[in-house]
Amino acid sequence: MPVLLAPQRAPALSQLLQAADSVGLGCSITESAQADTLRIAGIGSLNTAGPAEISFLSNPRLQSQLAQCQAAAVILRPQDWTAFQAQHPEPPVWAAVLCSQPYLMYALLAQWFDRHRLADLPQGIHPSAVVADDAVLEAGVHIGPLAVIESRTRIGAGSRVGAGCVIGPDCTIGRDSLLHAHVTLYHGVQVGARAILHAGVVLGADGFGFAPDPRTSGAWAKIAQLGGVRIGDDVEIGANTTVDRGAVEDTVLGNGVKLDNQIMIGHNCRIGDHTAMAACVGVAGSTVMGQRCVIGGAAMFGGHLTLGDDVHISGGTAVTSDILKAGRYTGVFPVAEHGTWQHNAAVIGQLAQLRKRVRATERQAASPAEPMNNKQDT
Amino acid sequence: MPVLLAPQRAPALSQLLQAADSVGLGCSITESAQADTLRIAGIGSLNTAGPAEISFLSNPRLQSQLAQCQAAAVILRPQDWTAFQAQHPEPPVWAAVLCSQPYLMYALLAQWFDRHRLADLPQGIHPSAVVADDAVLEAGVHIGPLAVIESRTRIGAGSRVGAGCVIGPDCTIGRDSLLHAHVTLYHGVQVGARAILHAGVVLGADGFGFAPDPRTSGAWAKIAQLGGVRIGDDVEIGANTTVDRGAVEDTVLGNGVKLDNQIMIGHNCRIGDHTAMAACVGVAGSTVMGQRCVIGGAAMFGGHLTLGDDVHISGGTAVTSDILKAGRYTGVFPVAEHGTWQHNAAVIGQLAQLRKRVRATERQAASPAEPMNNKQDT
Amino acid sequence: MPVLLAPQRAPALSQLLQAADSVGLGCSITESAQADTLRIAGIGSLNTAGPAEISFLSNPRLQSQLAQCQAAAVILRPQDWTAFQAQHPEPPVWAAVLCSQPYLMYALLAQWFDRHRLADLPQGIHPSAVVADDAVLEAGVHIGPLAVIESRTRIGAGSRVGAGCVIGPDCTIGRDSLLHAHVTLYHGVQVGARAILHAGVVLGADGFGFAPDPRTSGAWAKIAQLGGVRIGDDVEIGANTTVDRGAVEDTVLGNGVKLDNQIMIGHNCRIGDHTAMAACVGVAGSTVMGQRCVIGGAAMFGGHLTLGDDVHISGGTAVTSDILKAGRYTGVFPVAEHGTWQHNAAVIGQLAQLRKRVRATERQAASPAEPMNNKQDT
Repeated sequence: MPVLLAPQRAPALSQLLQAADSVGLGCSITESAQADTLRIAGIGSLNTAGPAEISFLSNPRLQSQLAQCQAAAVILRPQDWTAFQAQHPEPPVWAAVLCSQPYLMYALLAQWFDRHRLADLPQGIHPSAVVADDAVLEAGVHIGPLAVIESRTRIGAGSRVGAGCVIGPDCTIGRDSLLHAHVTLYHGVQVGARAILHAGVVLGADGFGFAPDPRTSGAWAKIAQLGGVRIGDDVEIGANTTVDRGAVEDTVLGNGVKLDNQIMIGHNCRIGDHTAMAACVGVAGSTVMGQRCVIGGAAMFGGHLTLGDDVHISGGTAVTSDILKAGRYTGVFPVAEHGTWQHNAAVIGQLAQLRKRVRATERQAASPAEPMNNKQDT
Repeated sequence: MPVLLAPQRAPALSQLLQAADSVGLGCSITESAQADTLRIAGIGSLNTAGPAEISFLSNPRLQSQLAQCQAAAVILRPQDWTAFQAQHPEPPVWAAVLCSQPYLMYALLAQWFDRHRLADLPQGIHPSAVVADDAVLEAGVHIGPLAVIESRTRIGAGSRVGAGCVIGPDCTIGRDSLLHAHVTLYHGVQVGARAILHAGVVLGADGFGFAPDPRTSGAWAKIAQLGGVRIGDDVEIGANTTVDRGAVEDTVLGNGVKLDNQIMIGHNCRIGDHTAMAACVGVAGSTVMGQRCVIGGAAMFGGHLTLGDDVHISGGTAVTSDILKAGRYTGVFPVAEHGTWQHNAAVIGQLAQLRKRVRATERQAASPAEPMNNKQDT
Repeated sequence: MPVLLAPQRAPALSQLLQAADSVGLGCSITESAQADTLRIAGIGSLNTAGPAEISFLSNPRLQSQLAQCQAAAVILRPQDWTAFQAQHPEPPVWAAVLCSQPYLMYALLAQWFDRHRLADLPQGIHPSAVVADDAVLEAGVHIGPLAVIESRTRIGAGSRVGAGCVIGPDCTIGRDSLLHAHVTLYHGVQVGARAILHAGVVLGADGFGFAPDPRTSGAWAKIAQLGGVRIGDDVEIGANTTVDRGAVEDTVLGNGVKLDNQIMIGHNCRIGDHTAMAACVGVAGSTVMGQRCVIGGAAMFGGHLTLGDDVHISGGTAVTSDILKAGRYTGVFPVAEHGTWQHNAAVIGQLAQLRKRVRATERQAASPAEPMNNKQDT
């Protein structure tokens, strides 16, 4: 992976594990003697990490990569370490870091390296930014070059607004939030603390609402969108994702919601805490989603639907009715070679008829003396 | 809903109804005495509107909410008012506004409140904007901070260009148009009057055209896109939607077309007047769509197709052949619990075979004496 | 089509053909006498080109348009010209340009006209741009108004960065690349030579990676994305497309890759040389795609998949497992009138059961004496 830290800035393994927020994960280093002198400059996967990097084993299918791994240290579950030792009497080149949650521990270490990188970022308000006189920037706020902060907007302590962002009037952004370049907030949008908004995010554009106007031939009367957008704490929103403002009430994203890139959340939607959506999902207006839902990429939701808590939707599925019960749901046409697909797809248009034929044949088979009255010419 | 107007600026109900463009909607207030003193500061839904707000009944299923509604006034059809009175001898706390089209009336009132809000917006050319010397800005044009207007572009009277927009050279924007922040127009794009373009809209990027070059192994020769984009009057385009320029001729959106967010219109397409598309729709190149079509979210259109007038496509449907006849069309795999889906999806790959078996069994059942010659082992 | 060149700047047909890169295409003009005086000011389709434009016949179905074509010249295959002459003894108004690859020749001519247009574009670093002191701009680089170039970034000779772009620190852009307006590069992104990046492109946003944190109820721990993005030479990326940075290693696009608008490439993906994707495609993380694949619009790919070389995926298809063999693959629910779809879709949920019934009926028909034990009430 890219060089993250120069050798002289790389922490010792034991220091690194302490610095990361690993309370409750039961993390311990098996080779403590070595661990004091080991410097960790970055993170790598099992088959690419070099002698200044730490790696981790989370997916059991990668266990066979442990023997050849060149990392300085590997995070793994105690049982995986025991199994490895049973098969490899010679100690490996890497120090074993035993941890009940290796994937989470990796996440925490990656956060540590990322914070270290962020320490180099510029501070203060760039002179090319356009900040309204009556905007309120709390302590330690950074505003990047050519960003625009409009009237009466308040930005919480420690937050960073990237280059070229446009934050409309009357917005509120909580503390320690990070807005990458080219984020757009329309007027009156509220974002909580510790948000991460990626480039091209648009919050608060008008919802899609029109009334047919019978006084004209086909024209639509715009329904001005008078509600707002409220985003909870600890929300991350991916690049070019859009969350529309409500028609009358607000569109709401709960705490801890995670949205990937190019997602569309329609007006009046309410998304429950900790729900996560992969890229390219579309949620039509006024749909309400529960907590801890997991939505696969490119799934699509009709409007005015209700999803319960802990509903998982497979990628590519179109949801057109309420789903109240927790569980996994799918609706995807299976891919096939094109010719095969053509043959099978042709039958889709006759399924109802085919079922009738089966029913008729069942009756016929059960009472073969009756004359056949359901003759088909297909 | 958010406070829209301070009490002292709130109009009387009768004034508000006159100010909104309600000609032809037969609007009348049943409680005229009260109506003069009632001040309306905003709009709310039946179950959230407070005593300074107006609400409306459009969806008959919400009729039961009328009795508890706390709004100052409710717009409803005369027959709904009669039905309400028959069941509730006591007069409600709200004044009844009788109107043949309550939803349209709500739209017009919301527009009135939105215009009022817009009256507070800044005017003129922000000093940080970069406007070419030979650009033509007609009377009353507003250019937001850090916007760019390039050479020979003309912007019609009363139009507003938001912060950070980039309007390329040789563009034309009609009068009273509203470009929100971060809109991009490539060179030579034409937009009509009263357009609303939301943040992140890109008009006039190159269409996707390449010719295989047999002189190389697999490389593509770019087909420079020499056409333009022409957008009619009264068009609204949602956030992060893209309309590509034509290869040779122009890509054209008719008058009154309404596009939601994150829609993609390929090069050379022509979209008929008043056609409306919900979010995440993709239309491949050279497809021609009629007037007053309604396209559900995430629908997908192949290239070089023709759609007639008044065609409705359900959300999530992939359209791969012409549809000339008006009507509603659908093609969506129904969602199910994942295990159920797996069982049924497995049969999709055998449908053609299944149909053959049904046919064979029909013959067998009709003439049971013949030996079975279509034995399957599934 | 739009006027491309004033008459006095229009080249003679023979000059134009020489100036375009037509080596190896066996291009010849049948009417050389006329060709010296013919001035070509633009390109048109067969039925719209005027007497100062050149057209081409590539699609055999358009052959009937040749007789009425008003163009100055038409590029066509020798065999099509012979066939035309056999049916039309009178010479046409256009000069015939014989070429083995008319569509490729058209592409090369369109490039020539586009280069001519680009010759008028402004040069140099616009005074409103914000360029870091330690950024390196090679010879002939153009930086548009209000663009931002951050520290240690290097931009190759002859490249153009459009208005309002934000190029983060430590990026590298190769020579002769063209970034349209509002492109965002996060830190450390590498782009090759001759790239074309359209407005709203975002390269290097964080991949979507979270680890469930069992120490909390439902919260996600962010996996900081420490890898980068590497884009090869001759890559074109459409408007509002996003390519995320890798978690540990880089996300990679090979040479000659062509991505249309609003595509999402997840973290850690590797896309092979010359693979082309139409608009609205989503590729989930860690998927590896071969060379020369062609992906139809709105196709969707699950994560951690492998696609071989020369795989073609039809538009709208969801790919959820590896496809190693070259060929065309499809999985799309066929569109139908809504009522028909409803009837057929209702059977989808009973397909596994229907297959069982067919099997039972087959047995019954084969041995009609046995009692029917699979009675269904549908």
